[in-house]
Amino acid sequence: MPKTIAVLTSGGDAPGMNACIRAIVLACERENYTVYGYLHGYNGLLNQEYTQLHAERVHNLNQLGGTILHSARCREFKTQDAAERAAANLDALEVDMLIVIGGDGSFRGAMHLSNYWDGQIIGIPGTIDNDINGTDATIGYYTAIETAVDSIDKVRDTADAFERIFLVEVMGRHAGFLGLSAALASASDFVLLPELFESEAATLKQIGEQLSERREQRGNISYIIVLAENLWPGGINKLAEKLQSLTQSEVRPVILGHVQRGGAPVSQDRIMAMKLGAHAVSLAGSQTNCVMVGERYGKPCEVPLPVTWSEPKPLSDSDVNTMKQLMNNRYA
Amino acid sequence: MPKTIAVLTSGGDAPGMNACIRAIVLACERENYTVYGYLHGYNGLLNQEYTQLHAERVHNLNQLGGTILHSARCREFKTQDAAERAAANLDALEVDMLIVIGGDGSFRGAMHLSNYWDGQIIGIPGTIDNDINGTDATIGYYTAIETAVDSIDKVRDTADAFERIFLVEVMGRHAGFLGLSAALASASDFVLLPELFESEAATLKQIGEQLSERREQRGNISYIIVLAENLWPGGINKLAEKLQSLTQSEVRPVILGHVQRGGAPVSQDRIMAMKLGAHAVSLAGSQTNCVMVGERYGKPCEVPLPVTWSEPKPLSDSDVNTMKQLMNNRYA
Amino acid sequence: MPKTIAVLTSGGDAPGMNACIRAIVLACERENYTVYGYLHGYNGLLNQEYTQLHAERVHNLNQLGGTILHSARCREFKTQDAAERAAANLDALEVDMLIVIGGDGSFRGAMHLSNYWDGQIIGIPGTIDNDINGTDATIGYYTAIETAVDSIDKVRDTADAFERIFLVEVMGRHAGFLGLSAALASASDFVLLPELFESEAATLKQIGEQLSERREQRGNISYIIVLAENLWPGGINKLAEKLQSLTQSEVRPVILGHVQRGGAPVSQDRIMAMKLGAHAVSLAGSQTNCVMVGERYGKPCEVPLPVTWSEPKPLSDSDVNTMKQLMNNRYA
Amino acid sequence: MPKTIAVLTSGGDAPGMNACIRAIVLACERENYTVYGYLHGYNGLLNQEYTQLHAERVHNLNQLGGTILHSARCREFKTQDAAERAAANLDALEVDMLIVIGGDGSFRGAMHLSNYWDGQIIGIPGTIDNDINGTDATIGYYTAIETAVDSIDKVRDTADAFERIFLVEVMGRHAGFLGLSAALASASDFVLLPELFESEAATLKQIGEQLSERREQRGNISYIIVLAENLWPGGINKLAEKLQSLTQSEVRPVILGHVQRGGAPVSQDRIMAMKLGAHAVSLAGSQTNCVMVGERYGKPCEVPLPVTWSEPKPLSDSDVNTMKQLMNNRYA
Repeated sequence: MPKTIAVLTSGGDAPGMNACIRAIVLACERENYTVYGYLHGYNGLLNQEYTQLHAERVHNLNQLGGTILHSARCREFKTQDAAERAAANLDALEVDMLIVIGGDGSFRGAMHLSNYWDGQIIGIPGTIDNDINGTDATIGYYTAIETAVDSIDKVRDTADAFERIFLVEVMGRHAGFLGLSAALASASDFVLLPELFESEAATLKQIGEQLSERREQRGNISYIIVLAENLWPGGINKLAEKLQSLTQSEVRPVILGHVQRGGAPVSQDRIMAMKLGAHAVSLAGSQTNCVMVGERYGKPCEVPLPVTWSEPKPLSDSDVNTMKQLMNNRYA
Repeated sequence: MPKTIAVLTSGGDAPGMNACIRAIVLACERENYTVYGYLHGYNGLLNQEYTQLHAERVHNLNQLGGTILHSARCREFKTQDAAERAAANLDALEVDMLIVIGGDGSFRGAMHLSNYWDGQIIGIPGTIDNDINGTDATIGYYTAIETAVDSIDKVRDTADAFERIFLVEVMGRHAGFLGLSAALASASDFVLLPELFESEAATLKQIGEQLSERREQRGNISYIIVLAENLWPGGINKLAEKLQSLTQSEVRPVILGHVQRGGAPVSQDRIMAMKLGAHAVSLAGSQTNCVMVGERYGKPCEVPLPVTWSEPKPLSDSDVNTMKQLMNNRYA
Repeated sequence: MPKTIAVLTSGGDAPGMNACIRAIVLACERENYTVYGYLHGYNGLLNQEYTQLHAERVHNLNQLGGTILHSARCREFKTQDAAERAAANLDALEVDMLIVIGGDGSFRGAMHLSNYWDGQIIGIPGTIDNDINGTDATIGYYTAIETAVDSIDKVRDTADAFERIFLVEVMGRHAGFLGLSAALASASDFVLLPELFESEAATLKQIGEQLSERREQRGNISYIIVLAENLWPGGINKLAEKLQSLTQSEVRPVILGHVQRGGAPVSQDRIMAMKLGAHAVSLAGSQTNCVMVGERYGKPCEVPLPVTWSEPKPLSDSDVNTMKQLMNNRYA
Repeated sequence: MPKTIAVLTSGGDAPGMNACIRAIVLACERENYTVYGYLHGYNGLLNQEYTQLHAERVHNLNQLGGTILHSARCREFKTQDAAERAAANLDALEVDMLIVIGGDGSFRGAMHLSNYWDGQIIGIPGTIDNDINGTDATIGYYTAIETAVDSIDKVRDTADAFERIFLVEVMGRHAGFLGLSAALASASDFVLLPELFESEAATLKQIGEQLSERREQRGNISYIIVLAENLWPGGINKLAEKLQSLTQSEVRPVILGHVQRGGAPVSQDRIMAMKLGAHAVSLAGSQTNCVMVGERYGKPCEVPLPVTWSEPKPLSDSDVNTMKQLMNNRYA
């Protein structure tokens, strides 16, 4: 019996979402399934806004940032009424399986819908923040690291030219994955992460000590601090001021901002997106339901949706260890 | 008689300064001249901080952003005392020609020095702002355009995904070169430039009209406004607020910031830097003095230093015309 | 009276052709003109294969390499029969002006067509080779330089690691523009260009001397030779062999190949493409006919089509001069 | 008791080797160890050519492709005499631990040395080929994928413009890791890998069938085949000829070549390099000897050197599976 699959992208867009859509469409074509793409996240589901997808449409989609299905937040979707309307719309289209590409908010929405709809629901983690429990990485995370590092590398040029202190804010919502990876890869001098943050005073003291020691040893130097967003009370400008008075030097704040969400995905995001998309389709018709298809040790894995937000995902011990050996200390 | 040449980089650093230093060193080696690099802009001249430069040292310098000679601002240099000290230092090193790579502030410094020193002084325009009269472009300008456009292209991905309005601030000091080029190349929807700015009210009206017309024709769309820095009263956040209330939509501000100063220079900056550097050295021993070596119609040109800051350099008519045909109007 | 404009891309594709198509479409929309895009170069004209173009279709086209209209060679187009058929097809569509984006072969085709068709014909130079007389640059040229330089920069890393000799072939058809710019910007050590080529023997002697002198002064070094395609008798492998026996060292050949034709266009190509496209549309209805719209000193210029292939375009004196000062000699 | 550590890079250079050197130096500085860098791989060990390394020297090394210690092949090192000489040189410098960054040939050399030297020997996998048993990835592998994919993306532009068949050869020595990842990420249409190669005839048949089916369904299309080097009898040109006569269409061969070895490392290579380098230093003074420090499931692991070349490392099942679902078949 031929199957019908629908896919939508929801929450913050992430590079690689399109590669995932492409994989889903190609895998469906192979199995002779029909595929619909709902537009604007859950809003499209509520308003029955969709488009049928074919192999021609997804040509070269691997290379494209953003999402051709558009994304959106949808507060209304939390209500019973909305979920019932969505269920009715899915049934009207005879959809057997709904694939939701997004973050934990999107997965909560999917779980809510499952109370009112009998079809299969599969989540795929797509967010630059990598803050989804149960998967080693999320689609878009690797690209966002590269974008942040590329920018910090550029900041280093000008920091070196002027032997100046820069404070660079990277995204990550309430998690430090992006900040830690970007700081490590860019060989930044200090990093502030929510998972490792003790107090304002302790942080300032540590930076002050590291900086004076370096200046004693090497004279004037450039110095780059990576700051995870939503961490410092009062924000980056407040921290810049404090550092300025602490170090008696100009401190320039740089907010990388939404640039980190876009761009052609890097290979690791493309490959992971393809793997997860193809695996999701392979589950059609099975008993598997209400799971996220994530990646564990290079292979697709299946994790019950509620597990994905049940607890904060910890930073990699090994990355934190490397950071402690090579950054935030007076030797690096 | 073998000559001695000194070079320094001053003011905001710009990608391609190193390629220029490399060209100067290689051209000097060819002519058997000695070359010194003063460190930290005019500060090095005051403190006799310098290093002798050889071909080995400049290997692969074409690829490197920033400046290996470091740059700095130097307020003190405006005094007679400082200029006299610099002159004495140059004489002590038996320097015949001083090459200053920088912007108009650096050129004013050079002119000031010429009142107290008899040697040859040559300026080379190095700034991402392109705001130097008498040269078609400045070293670093092309790279900064590329960096800004690369970022705005990424912003477009996320703007398209959410059909959202973004406001992107680019550098340029008090000139619109970088803003205009970046907006054109990135196919932005609207651009605000100091040279073409009428009033807050007129601008808001124009944006409002363009946006409503587009929405009528095409429904929800992404919309990117490029804003030159130092233009809008109250800054980008003030404008974002106004737009938000004007358009009844979220408006996200993005400040590209210091990222625009760094990075490996693009080919056009490298080639121009090499051309100007080699030409400057070729003037050693001639009567030419107190000029900037710039580029005009693809060839090196020589312009008296005071001309470089005598009046604001106008935007290219042809670029403005293209902008008016393809942006800031309801058709694009 | 509303006008109808048709556009096609022909010959080797070049990054920026899409940006030019976008500009043409937007400029036409502004003037209320109808625009058709013929597909597959002149073949589409012969087979009446076309598509109507609208602003929606060209969204984000500035960023896209290749050409959405596809390109092709079309030998058949040289005949009278073909030109008459094309003329009839254009008339059937009531086309007033045909814009041909391509190289000199495409312009010859356009001129041939003009003998059989009364409408306006405008050429726009689109080729990575920059070998079109009467324009300072051609759409795609700047991007191809950047791609070549990016690759040679990477080759330099491995050449430095092994202190090895590399021979890198770049495109350019029978012209040295791409080779010269790529060699300069990448700080290559030697460049072989058709315009400056004397003889095999003289070239080998020069390389041999430069290399031995360097090795005497600096010991083992990396050494990169840029070779324009279609220059060396027997091709790159023949030259590599000769160099190997001359230098008693391994010589690695690298052919950059078709990679040089693709990629997102750099800003200079995008802006030039927009400028030329918008200017071409502005000529609709005027007496101007059978001209190429090129760029001279940063402004659009108009050049009779036959002038574009009347004689080989010379390399820039200033670039050649810089090359002689900084490359192909024992000092660099 | 303060320790002395020596490091060398050997075999084909790979992006990230410098990031690894940096990590080793910083970790040593933290522990108050002395670090020497031997130059030119094992040759430097034989000729006692080395340099002492300090934190200043490794500033910004994360960003730099190639290896500042230079690399080389060293056939002579296989002899007993050479190993004894190397051992004597290490003892003369009072080296406690030697770290060898390279591929399996380099590890065999290290194992050979261990027969004549009592110090600790640690290998770190550095090669773009990823063909080292016992580690999930090797330093340089991720960057090489990105470089290859970036090039194939560009080839796609021109392939699409002309609806033409391209054959792209990627590196990998005798393994298909790079080929598989590059083909997947670039959304190529077919991939030929040594691990999955059956016969010339079977391959040609498969390609022929896939291509005719696509052409029936979609008309003319672009089609990209990725070919692992050293696989096809007679090489890429032979295969291009066969495909040309099989498909009755032009087939353009592109050899990516040494470009794949260079470039600034991507973040994943930088972070892995830092992790492995820091971990290697942490082993100083322990009983661990003659192991490679690789990465397993995101953490450093230790593998006896002989295991690294004991058997060919298999391709990831999961990647092969994804390939079979989305490529090399008539649906994709």
